[in-house]
Order: sequence, then C-alpha cells, then structure tokens
Amino acid sequence: MADSVAASNPLAPPWLHVPVDANALAAGLWSRTADRAGGELVVGGVTATALAARFGTPLYVVDEEDARARAVEVREAFDRAFAEIGTAAKVYYAGKAFLSVEVARWMSEAGLNIDVCSGGELAVALAAGVDPERVGFHGNNKSLAEIDQAVAAGIGAIIIDSVQEIGRVAAAAERHGVRQSIRLRVNSGVHAHTHAFLATAHEDQKFGIALEHAAEAVALIRSHASLAFRGLHCHIGSQIFGADGFAESAARLLTLHKELLAGGDVPELNLGGGFGIAYTSADDPAPIGELARRIAETVAAGCEELDIPTPVVAFEPGRSIIGTAGLTLYTVGTTKDVPVAFQDDGETAVRRYVSVDGGMSDNARPALYGADYSARIANRVSPTAPALVRVAGKHCESGDIVVDAEYLPADVEPGDLLAVPATGAYCWALSSNYNHIGRPAVVAVRDGEARVIVRGETIDDLLARDAGYTAPASTLSASKERSQA
Amino acid sequence: MADSVAASNPLAPPWLHVPVDANALAAGLWSRTADRAGGELVVGGVTATALAARFGTPLYVVDEEDARARAVEVREAFDRAFAEIGTAAKVYYAGKAFLSVEVARWMSEAGLNIDVCSGGELAVALAAGVDPERVGFHGNNKSLAEIDQAVAAGIGAIIIDSVQEIGRVAAAAERHGVRQSIRLRVNSGVHAHTHAFLATAHEDQKFGIALEHAAEAVALIRSHASLAFRGLHCHIGSQIFGADGFAESAARLLTLHKELLAGGDVPELNLGGGFGIAYTSADDPAPIGELARRIAETVAAGCEELDIPTPVVAFEPGRSIIGTAGLTLYTVGTTKDVPVAFQDDGETAVRRYVSVDGGMSDNARPALYGADYSARIANRVSPTAPALVRVAGKHCESGDIVVDAEYLPADVEPGDLLAVPATGAYCWALSSNYNHIGRPAVVAVRDGEARVIVRGETIDDLLARDAGYTAPASTLSASKERSQA
Ligand SMILES: Cc1ncc(COP(=O)(O)O)c(C=O)c1O
Ligand SMILES: Cc1ncc(COP(=O)(O)O)c(C=O)c1O
Repeated sequence: MADSVAASNPLAPPWLHVPVDANALAAGLWSRTADRAGGELVVGGVTATALAARFGTPLYVVDEEDARARAVEVREAFDRAFAEIGTAAKVYYAGKAFLSVEVARWMSEAGLNIDVCSGGELAVALAAGVDPERVGFHGNNKSLAEIDQAVAAGIGAIIIDSVQEIGRVAAAAERHGVRQSIRLRVNSGVHAHTHAFLATAHEDQKFGIALEHAAEAVALIRSHASLAFRGLHCHIGSQIFGADGFAESAARLLTLHKELLAGGDVPELNLGGGFGIAYTSADDPAPIGELARRIAETVAAGCEELDIPTPVVAFEPGRSIIGTAGLTLYTVGTTKDVPVAFQDDGETAVRRYVSVDGGMSDNARPALYGADYSARIANRVSPTAPALVRVAGKHCESGDIVVDAEYLPADVEPGDLLAVPATGAYCWALSSNYNHIGRPAVVAVRDGEARVIVRGETIDDLLARDAGYTAPASTLSASKERSQA
Repeated sequence: MADSVAASNPLAPPWLHVPVDANALAAGLWSRTADRAGGELVVGGVTATALAARFGTPLYVVDEEDARARAVEVREAFDRAFAEIGTAAKVYYAGKAFLSVEVARWMSEAGLNIDVCSGGELAVALAAGVDPERVGFHGNNKSLAEIDQAVAAGIGAIIIDSVQEIGRVAAAAERHGVRQSIRLRVNSGVHAHTHAFLATAHEDQKFGIALEHAAEAVALIRSHASLAFRGLHCHIGSQIFGADGFAESAARLLTLHKELLAGGDVPELNLGGGFGIAYTSADDPAPIGELARRIAETVAAGCEELDIPTPVVAFEPGRSIIGTAGLTLYTVGTTKDVPVAFQDDGETAVRRYVSVDGGMSDNARPALYGADYSARIANRVSPTAPALVRVAGKHCESGDIVVDAEYLPADVEPGDLLAVPATGAYCWALSSNYNHIGRPAVVAVRDGEARVIVRGETIDDLLARDAGYTAPASTLSASKERSQA
C-alpha cells in the first residue's frame, strides 16, 4: 500500500518495526472475522463506521463467531492432549476476563465450565442458565454471604483458599444439607509471566496454602462430612507464552497429590489459567494445542514416575478465549507533535500524540501493567507513509495511554476511527468512571448484525448514585455522545 | 499500650518502623476529627462500628469538617502568600480527585472555584449550584459536545490544550454569542513528583503546547473575537512535597508570559495542582503555607526581574484538600502467614496477609502507582505486640494490595474492622467493578451524624446494564452485604 516506508523513529521501542503497510491487520492480533472491505475495517460483517454511527465511540466490540470458536478450540485442544495420555481435561472459562450473561451462554454452549470469583459473577453465570454443577467459585476472601449463595446454588466446586474458610464452607453445606465439592488452592511457589518463570518455595502472595501445610488442610477438609475433597488447584500467573512454568507447578502439585491419595480419592488436578495472547506484533505465544500437549506430557511423566493414576486435569483460561475476540473503537479528537530528546544525545525526535475519546477508564491495562497494544485506522486505508504515534486517552492524567507506540499512516487525523485489537479481556472488566466518564457499551457482532450485550453508561447513570443530584436535563448534553442503546 | 515491641520484620520496607503503639493514629495521616474513643475509631463523632453496622463495608467515609476546613486553609494560605507580594491568588478545587454534588457545594462554600475535566464533572458542579463563572474546564481531548456544554453554561475558563481546539472553542462561542475566557496549557518541560523534579525542554506527554509554540497559539486565540485570552496554565505532576518544581515552572512560564504582554493583557498565571499529602509515617510534605510562600516569592522575584506586573496566580489542588479527609473502612475476612525467603539469604521470614472485603476495585492506587498506605484496627485497641502485615483485597489478582506493609497488633483477626486513612482522593474516582464487585457508598460524617453522599452499588445496579439479565431475586443475596442506603 505505502510506496515509501518512513524512516524508523528513534523513540520507537526496539521491538516495533516500521510496517510495510500501516493499514494491514497483522496476523494473530485481530479476531477471525476482522478484515478490510472497501478500505474499512469490518468485523462480524459490520463496518467500523456503521458501528460508530449507531452506538457512538468509544465502543467495545466482541466478535461472537471468534469467541465461540476459540472456546471450542481451546476446549478441544485440552481434550485431545489429555485423551492422549489416557485421562480427561476439564476447561473452565475464567469469567474475570470478561463476563456478561450473553458471553456466559456462549461459553456454556461451547461446552466449557465457568469459573467465577464473586457473588456478582455467580449471579451472571446463573442468569445465563449455566448448570451450577459446572461452576467453580474462587477467591481468597469470599464473604459468608457469597459462600452461602454458592452452596445454596449447588455449584460444582468451591476453591478453598485458607484454613479459615474450611469451617465456613462446611457450616454452609451443613446448613443447606448438602455435600459440597471442594478444591484446595495451594501456593506452589511458581510464578510465570510471558517468557520467564520463577520457582521459589512459596510465592509472596495472598493466595493459597503453602505446599507443606496443604496435607493438613486437606485432612481438615476430609474431616467434615459436608465437604467432598476433589483435588488441588494452583494458578501461576498471566500472559504466559510457554509451558515450562505449568510443567514445574504440575510436578510440584503431583508430589503432594500422591501424598493425599493415602487419605482417599483425589480425582482432579487444576492448573489454572494464564495462557497468553498477542497484543502486538512482538508477541508470539505458543499455540494452545502445543501448550496443552507439553503440559499433558509432563503430567503423564509425573504420574508414571510417582506411580499414581492420572487425574482429570482442569484449566481456567480467560484471556486466551475472549481477549482476541474483542476490539475497542475510538474516535480521534486531537493530534499533537511533541519534540522529545532521546537518550544519550542532545538530538530530539518528534512523538505524535493522537488523542482518542476514551482511555484509562475503558482500558486500564497500559497504566496498571505497562501493557502494550497496537492500533489501526478503522474508517479508511491511507497510502501515506507511516509515522510513529502514541495513542493517548482523554483523561486528565499523563499516564493515560492507550497504545504506547505504533506506526500509523501519518495522515491520521481528528474524525478518524481507531481500532485497538485484543481488548476483549480485562478491559471492560477493569473499567472505571475516572473523570466522571461513562463506560462504553459492549456490542456483539455476527453475520452482519450488531447488538448491545452490555449497555453503556450515560452521565445520568453516573449521577443517579449521587445523593445530591437531581437531573436538570439541560446539563446532560454530553451524555448524548455515549452509546445508550 | 504495647508492653513489649515486636522485633522488626526483615520483610518490612526500610522506612517502616515498628511502632511503640500499633493502635495510635499517627499525626498527619488522619482527618482532624478522627480519634479513639473507648478504644474505637471515631470520625465526625461517629464510631467505626456504627458506620459498619449501618452502611456495611467496604465504606468510604469523608470527614466533612476536615474537608471544609482544609479547603478554607488552603485557600487562605495562597491568599495570604500572594497578598504579601501584592497580588491575588485564585484556588480551584480539582474535582478529578473526588467530586460529588455535596463536595462541590462544600468547596464552593469555602470560597474555592472548581476545576472540571469532563462533561460529567461539569454536570456535577452545576448541579451543586456552583457559579459557572467560577468553573475551569480542562482536557487534552474535549469532545465538541463538551465544549458546547461548557460554553453554553457560561463557564469561567476553558483551558485550551491544542491548536486544534482553538477553532472549536471559538466556533462554539460564536454560536452562543459569547466571548469565552481561555487559558492556554503549556508543556513547561518540568515534571515533579514527591522529592524530585526533572526539567527538560519538553516533557514527553500529551498535554499542552510546547513553550516555543505557545506565543503563536496565543496569537491565534487573540485573533478570534469570540475568545478572551486570560493567561497560561501548567500542571507539573502529583504528590509533590516541595516548591522547587513549581518555582522552576513558574520561572519558565513568566518568561513567556512577558512575551505575551506585548500583544495584550495577560491577567493570570495558573500553576496547577499536585501538592502532596502524607499516606504513611514516611511522608513529610511541606505545609501548604510554606509552599505557597516559596512559590509567591519566586513569582515576585521573577516579575521584578522581568519588570512586569505580577499576575493573579491560580492553583488547582485536589488531593491536598480532600485526600486526608477520607478514609476507607473494611472488614477483615481471612488472615494467612506466608513464609517468604528474604534477599541474599536462605532464611525466611513470615509475612502475614490480612484480607479485607474490598481491594483494587475501591482503591486502584497501590496497583496503579505502587502507592503506599497505612492502616489501623478500627473497632478496638489491642495490647498485643505489633506484627508486620500486608493488607490484601478480595480480588482474584495477586497485585490486589491495599496496604503493602504495616505493623498492626498481632491479634488482628477476621471480623475486625480496618481503617485505611487518606483515601479521600483518587480512590472513589478510580474505582471499578472488577470481578463484578459493586462500589462502596461514600458517607459524610459530621457532628455525630452520617449520611450517604454517593450511594453504593448493589449487584442489581451492576447487572442492570447487562442486556441478557433479568433479575431473579434469589441469586442476589450477595447484594445485601453492600451499602444500599
Ligand atoms: C485462579 C485464576 N484462574 C484463572 C485466571 C484466568 O487467567 P487468564 O485470563 O490469564 O487465563 C485467573 C486470573 O487471574 C485466576 O486468578
Ligand atoms: C491540570 C490538573 N490540575 C490539577 C490537578 C490536581 O492534582 P492534585 O490532586 O494532585 O492536586 C491535576 C491532576 O492530575 C491536573 O491534571
């Protein structure tokens, strides 16, 4: 598309290369139905401009076909890998990544179980008609009301996180006259992130029970007639690209697992979630099928070495199912060239700031985790040579960055739509009303149809909770900008 | 209170000392009416247990007397300091720190102007009956609707942030047949935080116009009959403890200010906000009166040297007015001792994790900025020797930390109330519904009375925006825990 490629900008991070075509949708970053049609970005058969015109921007867009298909693919990858070692896999969708009634239904229809971590998430799963037996409930500090709610609903497993919780869950189960299935979260000491993992005796974090105290906790669980111990659980991190951390934690857990077999049945082992996705062209996560196979091999080898039956192995992927299915649409409002001195040199280079109509309120991950994203102009393609840009939000905070560094056609301008891919996980989930800005709607697209699955917030919504507020219609014009459908 | 002081824990950060009394309310961290009465924490004449019983926890509590008094004190400190150099000060309360109709009213009654940065914040200020003339409107990417709303309301000043915005505001003013007062935000190149400041040619951030292009932008502003240029604006950072950064940016702005006098009147200079507060016993911000005096002296010296009349000098403090007025009440749910290896040594020490019923959804600052806080048991005093604790939230994320390190009486246990001081600024403002957890209510306390100024969210509130949801009353039991008043 571009005739000449712009010289790279010294302010760009080393991993970011000048693209041959700054309009191209890089492989792996976009949901499966995303494409260019007549120059425009189209997803689920709906054009970016049609979405913006109907729902306004910012807007979260979820590619339904992609989300459903990935759920099936991830489930089948684990099913296949564990069938090969003669056992079964069990896949839970981690609702914390993104949960709405509609998405819980998709996951359920794809044959996944659902992992929740609060009464609110449980309410969503139940409202979606998910079989309670297929729900797991996490949390280092579940309230008594949440425990009661979970037991009353008859959920499949409560993941116990502390010794104090054992008696609480046992009491709730007794009260409801049921035998509650339990998993025990352990602190395996393994922490993984992207390309590295760290293995210590215990990780310095709030979750789980130290490996050396877990047998005692399991004995306590087993001493309660109202509790049925099902197995161990661990979760080792997030945005993990390789299998080594999972292998190490599986090995550690299996040793304990064997010890527990002396006291009774231990049908399951849950290795948590954390499988990574690509946010930028620099990210190269291993395919889920390969990870599943590597982990299955480790489990098989461990069980053989320990001479124990292979348990059912469970996983809880969130991001790797819903992350790439989502994108966020923004409208560019202002652009600005800032001369910036670069390191070890008196010279300056120009960083172009492109400000959009959302920001850290709809995507906190760059500010929270220093997360990188990418972007493309969505309403058109441009033959203009690429320029380095930083996409900033509209919040009154200098850390309000949406995309730290990206090459976009240099003629990107106010009124352009920008699409940021891979915002399906932990964006809506972490969204806020910082600066009294309402949260965008979530729209599902499929086969040329778009429909709101979570309504956006108007300024009226925000102010409705302010005890001193009585709506004077005239001051609410800004709410017209927001998707109200 | 404590007979023996526990040995310090090697996991404690170097700045954290074992307190003689881990029940004591350290000077400077708590709002002015906070005290112990019969062992309990009392604020605004209301006990912690009464607040928890009536409104539930977590709960944001604002000490009205403290907020109002600090607003007056800060205003008077600037008034006095600038009167001494023969000019006036103008103080805007930065609503981004915390804004509700009630608080906007307090600020207005204390004689402050209000600084807003979105249509939503403007709606709150107007609903509070704040004179629009006393409102300033910020933002690097105001929408056309927001600009229209602000001009239509007749607000005192729009702070223009980019060249593109000049024409937009001019057009809106023409449409409404008014002459809109304007300040111009410049990128002074000075960035300050706590004890240090950095001065470069331009800061690598999205706000403002480079100093060397500002004169041109002002000429463009002045070319519009519908715009009235009032002066320059900058904001150099946050949680700043000293005056040096302000002095440097004032000096830079005054040079430009003088240049602009050649083209007409420049009545004002706005140096922004960013004055720090104490979050822990390690923080020691200079008193605001001292900072005001130091800045006033710099401005006076600069104007004398440049031989120009001293402008009115404006400030926009947020945190330093409302931060210390707020505290958050939590209930302890679980406690856990995690053995942690410490650096350069095979030895381990124990870190006690105390998990409360809120977390990063009600206070994102530890996760976002690595911010430190402190805590005290609120429902009782304990003679037990102090132990190092980390206060964690209930979210499914290991970074969900409320207080990274604090010494509390070692018998802190489930059911105890914990109070975290200095949560009045940027906590409610940045709050989210992560993990589908509703946000706490904000309660104002004064003279023994407590009243809700912002209602808390129930699970019904959260799910009301989910298009697939129809409330089955039975699944909503968890909402009973949340403050619904
Ligand atoms: C216990 C547990 N399971 C699963 C997940 C999902 O992780 P991901 O979305 O990275 O797969 C998390 C994320 O924090 C978690 O804490
Ligand atoms: C322009 C402007 N003014 C004032 C403030 C308030 O700062 P603080 O609350 O630190 O005083 C901010 C904070 O970001 C700001 O951006």
